[in-house]
Amino acid sequence: MEGRPPGRPQFGTRRIASLFFIPVMAYLNENYLKLQAGYLFPEIARRVGEFCEAHPEAAKRLIRCGIGDVTEPLPQAAVEAMKRAVDELGVRETFRGYGHEQGYEFLRSKIAQINYCERGVEIAAAEIFLSDGSKCDCGYILDVLGDQNKIAIPDPVYPVYVDTNVMAGHTGQAKSDGSYEGIIYLPCRAENDFVPKPPNEHVDIIYLCFPNNPTGAVASREQLTRWVEYAREHEAIVLFDAAYEAYISEPEIPHSIFEIPGARECAVELRSFSKTGGFTGVRCGFTVMPESLLARTENGRHLPLHPLWQRRWSTKANSVSYPVQRGAEALYSAEGRKQVRALVDHYMGNAGILAEAAKKIGLEVFGGRNAPYIWVKTPAGLTSWQMFDRLLNEINVVITPGSGFGSNGEGYIRVSAFNSRENAEEVARRLQSLT
Amino acid sequence: MEGRPPGRPQFGTRRIASLFFIPVMAYLNENYLKLQAGYLFPEIARRVGEFCEAHPEAAKRLIRCGIGDVTEPLPQAAVEAMKRAVDELGVRETFRGYGHEQGYEFLRSKIAQINYCERGVEIAAAEIFLSDGSKCDCGYILDVLGDQNKIAIPDPVYPVYVDTNVMAGHTGQAKSDGSYEGIIYLPCRAENDFVPKPPNEHVDIIYLCFPNNPTGAVASREQLTRWVEYAREHEAIVLFDAAYEAYISEPEIPHSIFEIPGARECAVELRSFSKTGGFTGVRCGFTVMPESLLARTENGRHLPLHPLWQRRWSTKANSVSYPVQRGAEALYSAEGRKQVRALVDHYMGNAGILAEAAKKIGLEVFGGRNAPYIWVKTPAGLTSWQMFDRLLNEINVVITPGSGFGSNGEGYIRVSAFNSRENAEEVARRLQSLT
Repeated sequence: MEGRPPGRPQFGTRRIASLFFIPVMAYLNENYLKLQAGYLFPEIARRVGEFCEAHPEAAKRLIRCGIGDVTEPLPQAAVEAMKRAVDELGVRETFRGYGHEQGYEFLRSKIAQINYCERGVEIAAAEIFLSDGSKCDCGYILDVLGDQNKIAIPDPVYPVYVDTNVMAGHTGQAKSDGSYEGIIYLPCRAENDFVPKPPNEHVDIIYLCFPNNPTGAVASREQLTRWVEYAREHEAIVLFDAAYEAYISEPEIPHSIFEIPGARECAVELRSFSKTGGFTGVRCGFTVMPESLLARTENGRHLPLHPLWQRRWSTKANSVSYPVQRGAEALYSAEGRKQVRALVDHYMGNAGILAEAAKKIGLEVFGGRNAPYIWVKTPAGLTSWQMFDRLLNEINVVITPGSGFGSNGEGYIRVSAFNSRENAEEVARRLQSLT
Repeated sequence: MEGRPPGRPQFGTRRIASLFFIPVMAYLNENYLKLQAGYLFPEIARRVGEFCEAHPEAAKRLIRCGIGDVTEPLPQAAVEAMKRAVDELGVRETFRGYGHEQGYEFLRSKIAQINYCERGVEIAAAEIFLSDGSKCDCGYILDVLGDQNKIAIPDPVYPVYVDTNVMAGHTGQAKSDGSYEGIIYLPCRAENDFVPKPPNEHVDIIYLCFPNNPTGAVASREQLTRWVEYAREHEAIVLFDAAYEAYISEPEIPHSIFEIPGARECAVELRSFSKTGGFTGVRCGFTVMPESLLARTENGRHLPLHPLWQRRWSTKANSVSYPVQRGAEALYSAEGRKQVRALVDHYMGNAGILAEAAKKIGLEVFGGRNAPYIWVKTPAGLTSWQMFDRLLNEINVVITPGSGFGSNGEGYIRVSAFNSRENAEEVARRLQSLT
C-alpha cells in the first residue's frame, strides 16, 4: 500500500500495544453469535428453493401459506392519499422536509380517536409513536429498557421477541432445544388454550401477542386482567403486540390491553398497518407508550418511560415517510375503513375455508376465528418439519412448521390465510387429496 | 380495581420479594438519564418560539437557516416513480408485500454501480443496506458492535454520534462542558482546517463525516489515507458519514472513504438521499458494509461484520417502503441525476451568497465550497448562543449555535444554505445591516 511506512504490521496481525501482546481490534457484538443459524423464514425459503429446483413442474403449482404476508392490493383510499402526498412534495408551496419525530399529529390523533377513544379507552395522541413497522418496534423498545430485566416470552412465539433479546445480551447461550438460558418461557399448549397464565416467579418484562401469531389464539378479558394484575403486583411491564387486533370477530374479546383497568400503568402496546391496510411493503406501525408507565433505576427511583421513548425517537430517527403517513391516515376515512374491513373479511373467509378443510381430513385445528392463522396439530407421529416436507412434496403447499416458533410449537403447523380466495380454495381441495 | 384479591399491595409500593425488601420493578435504560437536557434543535425551537410569541410582527419576517432541512420540491423523476409504485400496489397483479430485508436489488445495484463502480470503487450490491435514513443508521450500526470499544468522535460534531453512544452505555457521565467521560474527542479547529489527525492513543471506532456537518470542511485524499492507515494499524473501524458527498465541487476531494486503498478492510460508509433528492421527509439512506471488514470477539476470533449486519436487518426490520425505494431509484435515471444536480447547484448557490455576505461584514467564514453549510466565526467576544440571540433579535434570522455541536464549536455559528434563493439573498441583505 502506498504511503505505508516500512516496518508497520500488516492487517490481521496482532501488534504490541504496550509491553504485552494485547489483541487490539474493534469488538463485534458477540451476542449475535448466540443466535440460531436460521431465522425461521430463510430456512423455509431454502427448503422451498431446493424443492423447486428438483421439481420444476411441481414448482409451478406451488401455493405459499407460509410467511404471513398479505396478497391483496392496497386499499384505494390509501393509494389515492399517498399519491396526493407525493404530489404535494413535488411542489414548492406544499413541500415538507423533516416531520415531527413522533409522527405527524394528523395521524396520531386519528389513531388515538378511532382505535382507542371510540372503544372507550383513554389514550392521547402524545402517547402514540409512529414507526416503520411493528417488527422494528419490537427491537426499538429494548433501547429504553434496562439490561437487568428478567424477560418472559411465550412459547411458541414470533421469533423476533426472542432474537432481539438475544442480540441485546439479555440471554445466555442457546440450549439444544433452541431455547435460550435466562429467558422465562411461558408454554402455550392446547391444555391452556394457548393462553399462558402468569408465572409463579417474578419477571420484569412480559411479551404477549393477541390475537396470537402463530397460534391464532385470543385472550379473554379475564385472562388479560390476570396479566395486568400480575404486572401491577410485580411492577412489571407487559409488551402487548396487537398487530392482528382487526381480525377479532367475537365482540367480547378485548382489542387492546388498555381495555383492562390498570394497564396504563404497566403496558406498552404495539400495532401495525401491515395486516389492516396491507402495508407489509409500505411500512407503518406504532407503539402506545402511556405517560403513566413507570420503570425504575438501579437506585430505586421510579421514572416515566415516555420521555425516554420520546428521546429515543428524536435522537435516532426522523419518523415515517410523509406519503406513508398520509396513506395510513386514509385508512381511517369512511372509505378507508370500509376497504380495510373488506380486506380483513377476505382473509378471514380464507381462514374459514382452510380450517374447514383441515378438519374434514381429521386434523385438529385451532385459531382462525379471530386471527388470520390456523394452528393445526400434525397427524400422529409427524414432527412439524416432517409435516412441512410432506405438504411441500405431496400437495405443493408451503406452510410454517410450528417448531420454528419454539419447542412448544413442535407437532403443529401454522397455515396462513393471507392469500387469494382461489388459492385458499385450491389448498382446501388439495388437503382432501391427502387423506 | 375489580378482581384484585384482598391484601395485595397497591401499585407503587415495594413488596417483599423474598426475605428481604427488594425493589422489584422493570428497569429502564439508565444511560438515557446521562443525556444533556436539550437535543440542540428542540432548544433552538424553544428560543424561536419564545421570540415569536414576544414579537409577533418580527416573527412574520423570520428566516430559518438553522436545521439542515431542504426546502425545494422533490425531483419530478422521484415524484413520478413513487406515484407509479403506489399505483402498482393498488393492483393485485403488481402488488408487493414484504421486500428483501436489505432493500430491493434494483436500487442496491444502481447505488453500487453509479455511486461506487463508476468512480472506480469496488462495492457490490450485496454490500449495500437500505435504511430509513442516515440518522437511523448512526444508531443501528452500534447494534452489531461490542460495548468494549473505545470510541473517538470529532468535536464539533453532529450530536447523534455522541448521543447514540451515550444511550448504548458507551460513556460515563456528562462533564460541565457537555462532553462525556469515556469518549475520545478529536478537536476540529481552524488550526487543523477542521480535519482532525488520528490520535496518539488507541481507539477502536472512529466517526468521521466529510463533507462535514457542521463545519463544511472536507478531507483530502492524503488526510483520509492517514486515517485508513491508522485504522488498519490499530484494527479500528472508521464509520464514515458521507451524507453530503454530492456537494463536493473540487475534483480532487474523495467522495467515499472507499476511494482510499485499504478502506474495505476498516470502514463502513453511511449515505443518504436526504440532501441529494430532498428526501428528508421521504426517508431513505444506506450503509455500505464491505464483506471484507472484520471485527473481533472477546477471545480473539476475527469475524466479518457483514453477516451480523445482515442478521440485524432480517431480524429487526423489513426494509424501506417500496414506493420510497422506487423514488430513490429514479434519482439515478438520466432525468433524476440532472434534477439532483440542479438541486445541489441551487443550494450551493445559496452557500456562495451567504458566505460572500458574511465575509463582506468582516466575519471569518469556513466551509460552503464543498458543503451546504457555512461555519462562521462570531465577532470578538460573542459566544455562539449570544450570536444566535443577536441574529434572531436584530435581523430575525435563525442559525445554529456552534457550541451546540461540541465545546470546540464555541465561538462559531452554522448557517445552512438549505433555503430558497430569495431567502438566501434576503439573509445576505440583512447581514449587511448588522455592520
